[in-house]
Amino acid sequence: MREDPYRAFMPYPDAAAPSAPAGALQGLSFAVKDVIDVAGYPTGCGNPVKLAASGVRTKTAPVVQALLDAGARFAGKTQTDEFAYSILGRNIHFGSPVNPAAPGRISGGSSSGSAVAVAARQVDFALGTDTAGSLRAPASYCGVFGIRPTWGRVDNAGVEPLSPSYDTVGWFARSAETLAAVGDVLLGDDPTPLPGAARFLVDRACFGLARPEAAAALEVALRRVELRLGCFDIAAAAPNLDNLCWALRHMQSWEAWEAHKTFIERHAPVMNASLAERFASGKDVTETLLAESRALAARFRNHLADLLGEGTVLVLPTMPSPPPFLAEAEASMEDFRNRTLRLMCPSSLSGFPQVTIPVHDGETGPLGLSLLGPAGSDRSLIQLAARVAEAARERIA
Amino acid sequence: MREDPYRAFMPYPDAAAPSAPAGALQGLSFAVKDVIDVAGYPTGCGNPVKLAASGVRTKTAPVVQALLDAGARFAGKTQTDEFAYSILGRNIHFGSPVNPAAPGRISGGSSSGSAVAVAARQVDFALGTDTAGSLRAPASYCGVFGIRPTWGRVDNAGVEPLSPSYDTVGWFARSAETLAAVGDVLLGDDPTPLPGAARFLVDRACFGLARPEAAAALEVALRRVELRLGCFDIAAAAPNLDNLCWALRHMQSWEAWEAHKTFIERHAPVMNASLAERFASGKDVTETLLAESRALAARFRNHLADLLGEGTVLVLPTMPSPPPFLAEAEASMEDFRNRTLRLMCPSSLSGFPQVTIPVHDGETGPLGLSLLGPAGSDRSLIQLAARVAEAARERIA
Repeated sequence: MREDPYRAFMPYPDAAAPSAPAGALQGLSFAVKDVIDVAGYPTGCGNPVKLAASGVRTKTAPVVQALLDAGARFAGKTQTDEFAYSILGRNIHFGSPVNPAAPGRISGGSSSGSAVAVAARQVDFALGTDTAGSLRAPASYCGVFGIRPTWGRVDNAGVEPLSPSYDTVGWFARSAETLAAVGDVLLGDDPTPLPGAARFLVDRACFGLARPEAAAALEVALRRVELRLGCFDIAAAAPNLDNLCWALRHMQSWEAWEAHKTFIERHAPVMNASLAERFASGKDVTETLLAESRALAARFRNHLADLLGEGTVLVLPTMPSPPPFLAEAEASMEDFRNRTLRLMCPSSLSGFPQVTIPVHDGETGPLGLSLLGPAGSDRSLIQLAARVAEAARERIA
Repeated sequence: MREDPYRAFMPYPDAAAPSAPAGALQGLSFAVKDVIDVAGYPTGCGNPVKLAASGVRTKTAPVVQALLDAGARFAGKTQTDEFAYSILGRNIHFGSPVNPAAPGRISGGSSSGSAVAVAARQVDFALGTDTAGSLRAPASYCGVFGIRPTWGRVDNAGVEPLSPSYDTVGWFARSAETLAAVGDVLLGDDPTPLPGAARFLVDRACFGLARPEAAAALEVALRRVELRLGCFDIAAAAPNLDNLCWALRHMQSWEAWEAHKTFIERHAPVMNASLAERFASGKDVTETLLAESRALAARFRNHLADLLGEGTVLVLPTMPSPPPFLAEAEASMEDFRNRTLRLMCPSSLSGFPQVTIPVHDGETGPLGLSLLGPAGSDRSLIQLAARVAEAARERIA
């Protein structure tokens, strides 16, 4: 078994997961969040009772099979917050992964182990999932690239559902090049690629959610990008983030309860207290509230589609701050969650793709700058992110 | 998957565990504590990281195979306290089993699920293990028969070790007849059977450890037995229980740390805080302390062998009280543990067999009266226990 000082991996015994002898991803190793099936392994979902009931899976999820068929080498399954339903990166049963980019601080989650394994250079890339930030949060906190693709573009078969209307499979990498190489394999051609000269729209409402030190560091990066990639427009693409956030919470918790109630009522699995509350809150979402939330989300999606057209990219902070200590996040949990979830709303509610770029000035700690593009622009969005990342790194002479 | 209102079972998917079409145990179903290997299942040991690292076992432990070969039907694997190293019957990861004989109170452990499954009539008998009370405690608390056999008499292969010098595999049943039927299969002939007219020696030191209400209820049972089965002698077979108890604690914690340190140092599994302390205390046991403890245990074993000869049976309370509430036990943990462990010393330190008989007067809650016989007297001890149980039940006219 591998050495795993960051506790990124589940300690399952190795099973055979043969990859093709050649292919576009040959030479690259990858890890898979433990909510995605790999034949020969259980799918534990971060909860011991789920793990016990899982049994060893006999089918590999198509998204993993595609990577194996492209020659990538499977290196193991990674830790997740219980039921993939938290963005902290904490696990009370299996132990929380250690953030290699900010030891002592949370790694973010729920795709905690995948982000950590990439940040710690244990693998070249890793699959995660993102419903309302589960990939974006740990990417930002661990200082790596990550993509939440257009909803529905990557096959969710063999992936444990949380809230199916928002669930996506995405991936982490240390470089935009590797992020792109995986996208080449998993995404096919972009139905609506961005034009060569994309227009940037900086979302002031979203930047307003960043903590001052984070906002300052991201502004420096933005100014560097602007100097090289052209003028930014400024807007508030999502002016009603409070309502959107509540809509997302209602819909997510309702769908999460629907997805898991049979298991939870049958097994009463031990889970952390705040997760139990979130599941319970799903029971209280009325049909009226659900319908209103869905209508609000639909209006927002149309609004964002109009705003972005096929050539505009929204720029926003991935997370409101560098990774906090667990006690800090817990001490102000409601504020932490609301601030974070507001930033997750644009992509989660629209289904549009979001790429997060690591920004680390060495003082504030890991941050992420995000680009959100129109539906179906994923691969060209990664290409643009590569240019933005390069520009953001270059000091202004 | 079965209904499991008492949370006795691990929710593993069923695997094939074929039993012989005929045999001495045909028609009886049994469960197996999840520290004993059954092919097709993991061996989780009550800890999620152990479960993850276990993989599916490919060999069935000989003790289980012997039951299958005798025609008994395997019904599933049962819950255990983490690493089988607690007598509370609590599991912070998988949820604690419910005591069917005293709902709301602890079931006792670590063979919690096996005792509960038998008490709840989910199976006819069940395998557990006992190092320093892990079978006797839940048998007493759940109101069922149980035997901790002579150390070394039942094969420990395929059983997760805790403290190998004291580890035994035993079993629970609702009747002495079933307890005996299993013994017929697992034990072979007694090397040193008890004579037809065994002498009873009531251990006053051990009865002195019982709480007043427990002592009173057990005295009633004793008087009934005495009336029918002849005169009791009274002695203090283990007058130095304080020292013996500390010797057992030192040796057990030293061996437990030896058995598990590689795994614990590698994986740092999350475990309940008091268990972590017990493991850590094993590191502090010096060679001198260990040697002194072993010498004391050896002297005690010789003393007990002399006292019992081949025809005397020690009578003692199995546990000091009916099952407490978890909070009660935790509030006075050191007292609870010391009082209990003293009662476990005679069998654990000597390796002599102990059978516990359920005594329940309907008022005090479940209690156990124990018979401890000389080494190798197991099957005749069960026969004697059957007579004692019958006598203890009969009201004095």
